[in-house]
Amino acid sequence: MKAGPSQEDIRRHNLGTLLRFVHLRGPASRATLAESLGLNRSTIMALTADLTAAGLVREELPRKPGRRAGRPSLVVRPESTRVYVLAFDVGVDRLVVARVGLGGVVLDRREAARSRGSDPGELLGTLVAGARSIVRKAERDAVCVGAALGFPGTVRREDHAIMFGPNLDVGELRLGEALSRRLGLGIPVSVCNDANLGALAEHERGSGVGCDDLIYLHGDVGVGGGIIARGRLLGGAEGFGGEVGHMVINPGGRPCACGSQGCLEAEVGERTLLAHADREEAPGQTGRDAVRAVVDAADRGDIVAREALHRVGTWLGLGVANLVNVFNPGLVIFGGTLRDIYLGAAAQIRSVLATSALAAPREKVRLRTAALGDDTTLVGAAEFAFAEVLADPVQVLARLRAPEDSPV
Amino acid sequence: MKAGPSQEDIRRHNLGTLLRFVHLRGPASRATLAESLGLNRSTIMALTADLTAAGLVREELPRKPGRRAGRPSLVVRPESTRVYVLAFDVGVDRLVVARVGLGGVVLDRREAARSRGSDPGELLGTLVAGARSIVRKAERDAVCVGAALGFPGTVRREDHAIMFGPNLDVGELRLGEALSRRLGLGIPVSVCNDANLGALAEHERGSGVGCDDLIYLHGDVGVGGGIIARGRLLGGAEGFGGEVGHMVINPGGRPCACGSQGCLEAEVGERTLLAHADREEAPGQTGRDAVRAVVDAADRGDIVAREALHRVGTWLGLGVANLVNVFNPGLVIFGGTLRDIYLGAAAQIRSVLATSALAAPREKVRLRTAALGDDTTLVGAAEFAFAEVLADPVQVLARLRAPEDSPV
Repeated sequence: MKAGPSQEDIRRHNLGTLLRFVHLRGPASRATLAESLGLNRSTIMALTADLTAAGLVREELPRKPGRRAGRPSLVVRPESTRVYVLAFDVGVDRLVVARVGLGGVVLDRREAARSRGSDPGELLGTLVAGARSIVRKAERDAVCVGAALGFPGTVRREDHAIMFGPNLDVGELRLGEALSRRLGLGIPVSVCNDANLGALAEHERGSGVGCDDLIYLHGDVGVGGGIIARGRLLGGAEGFGGEVGHMVINPGGRPCACGSQGCLEAEVGERTLLAHADREEAPGQTGRDAVRAVVDAADRGDIVAREALHRVGTWLGLGVANLVNVFNPGLVIFGGTLRDIYLGAAAQIRSVLATSALAAPREKVRLRTAALGDDTTLVGAAEFAFAEVLADPVQVLARLRAPEDSPV
Repeated sequence: MKAGPSQEDIRRHNLGTLLRFVHLRGPASRATLAESLGLNRSTIMALTADLTAAGLVREELPRKPGRRAGRPSLVVRPESTRVYVLAFDVGVDRLVVARVGLGGVVLDRREAARSRGSDPGELLGTLVAGARSIVRKAERDAVCVGAALGFPGTVRREDHAIMFGPNLDVGELRLGEALSRRLGLGIPVSVCNDANLGALAEHERGSGVGCDDLIYLHGDVGVGGGIIARGRLLGGAEGFGGEVGHMVINPGGRPCACGSQGCLEAEVGERTLLAHADREEAPGQTGRDAVRAVVDAADRGDIVAREALHRVGTWLGLGVANLVNVFNPGLVIFGGTLRDIYLGAAAQIRSVLATSALAAPREKVRLRTAALGDDTTLVGAAEFAFAEVLADPVQVLARLRAPEDSPV
């Protein structure tokens, strides 16, 4: 039980709220900010002055002057090229590193294919090389305010250790620490489950804007989930929450990489779809392209592909029904390869939902695809990396700008 | 995005926090309050003065004077007999109405058996009679600050309408409104799913104190669930969240009251346990007593009862494993008839959990029984009813004490 905040807490909160507003919604006039945040204009002026002095925003005359007489309200813009984060997205088949400016602008990016047998050392090397190359291109006075990495596995919140992941058999993997050390930028690299980041991204910038209770389902080779409840990511006691891919929906069903059987992932994952479609052994046929090929074939009338998609859609529908009953989400969003599967099997998924979910939570739930497409998890990593500076903008920036003065 | 609170918001919050502290933890000295709430003693004095003037707490000299020299710190006590709520608990077989004082003291209670075929009108009549009888016994200057009812069904948050429940086929049932009208106390009666209330109660006063991510599983004739995430009840978009009893864990399995098949409720509910134990047809054999009889028989070595409990325990373990993967709770609490089933089948439940849940979220999860026993859902209803006065103590009480002056 905590007592109310101090004046200083409130100022910090308001600074963060204003910065968050222009970060997520774009440049805004002082008048708009005053109205949207419920603060008077003199408070907005004072907050903006602090954020400007810290180099986080700048004020400009509006590009299109308003119609009202008198002085136009100044527009507050995020300093997108001067304040940035590094976002890392580790997919099963693809690695992406991006420099993302305040306001969510992807300023620069590097992509590399990832071979499924690659070891953590090789992975680390590729990420470091990509990051160095894009940091070098940043403006000379730009400051990196955070870094985060999305990983398709189970990540402990406390120390960002990766506990379990596909094609990974190394015990606890401390990828964030290693990456931070190798980059030498003096900032930690947060690590988070990729589907959790996808949920964050879709909630803040995608299909889920305005919906505070949603579920994001992400298909890579496995199936991950991210749950937004009351507007925040549901992490559970240690940050492992959202592992909906390992909800058993078919006891005694297909074996799963986790050691169990009949998990959602085992019934609807990439390998299962390809196996049902008799495409398991085709050379080079893995990943999103392979899943898309099955969906396309089904669309063209290929009977085997249709049947495969129907089977996978049935199990996916059952998984969604369970989640609808348990969470009563306003929205379920399909991303990664599940985006394609959903587009190919929507009717089947809806049909199972109709018979297996309770009427009350089913009636208003909407099913959607990820609006951010293949960048959903990357955008989520960027948002995760921005979290600290958005929570306490001036202090974080002061610390980063004068590292030699700060106590270590 | 909301700006920080005003001074008045903070005062209200602090009043609520202080009152909540003595409500949940019992009488406390000003010194303890100052330390626990992180406020200085003059602020505590001012807050206590306001709460005292409102008749919510009183200050007394400590019963056992401390060892320190000087004036002893006054002890702040909740006005338990003068400020109360009405708590209604509708079980499948039992109805309870209680008058619960600030501080959580059950001041008075009435219980009645409920026949399974009873209609909403009969139910309402029993509840009204019970409530009237205990309100009449309240002290003359006592004030009822809230009322809430727990119901074993799906309840819409917005208007407290009951959408679905066992032995109920009446469309949307507005039991709260009807009850409030019949009672004529000028207070609304909130309605909430019983298992949700159980979660609240165990989190605030039971096995879950101190654990902010927990799952409460409640067995009556059906199986309900309540989820606490980050210390708050997870309701979802419309308040239907937590219906874990209708998570399908055995596709094509036993038919469920909801129309689906193989739901957790269908595999572990009372009827299924009794059917497996060949006790389905025994006269008078329903409810908690019947479940306890099976568990007792198994304990005495009855083979059929043992086998029945083993089967139910296996499915319950699978359900728990799914919830552990999806939520990463710190604690799973078994209440109602599931308390007995857990006690009889703990080994089996843990064994399934070990094979079906991911290692990471499984390692630290604890399994416990409801500390509040058969009163878990009743206590939850009382806590739910206290919520409003705890959020804004002085204003709520002022409104209730002067109803003739308030605008209608």
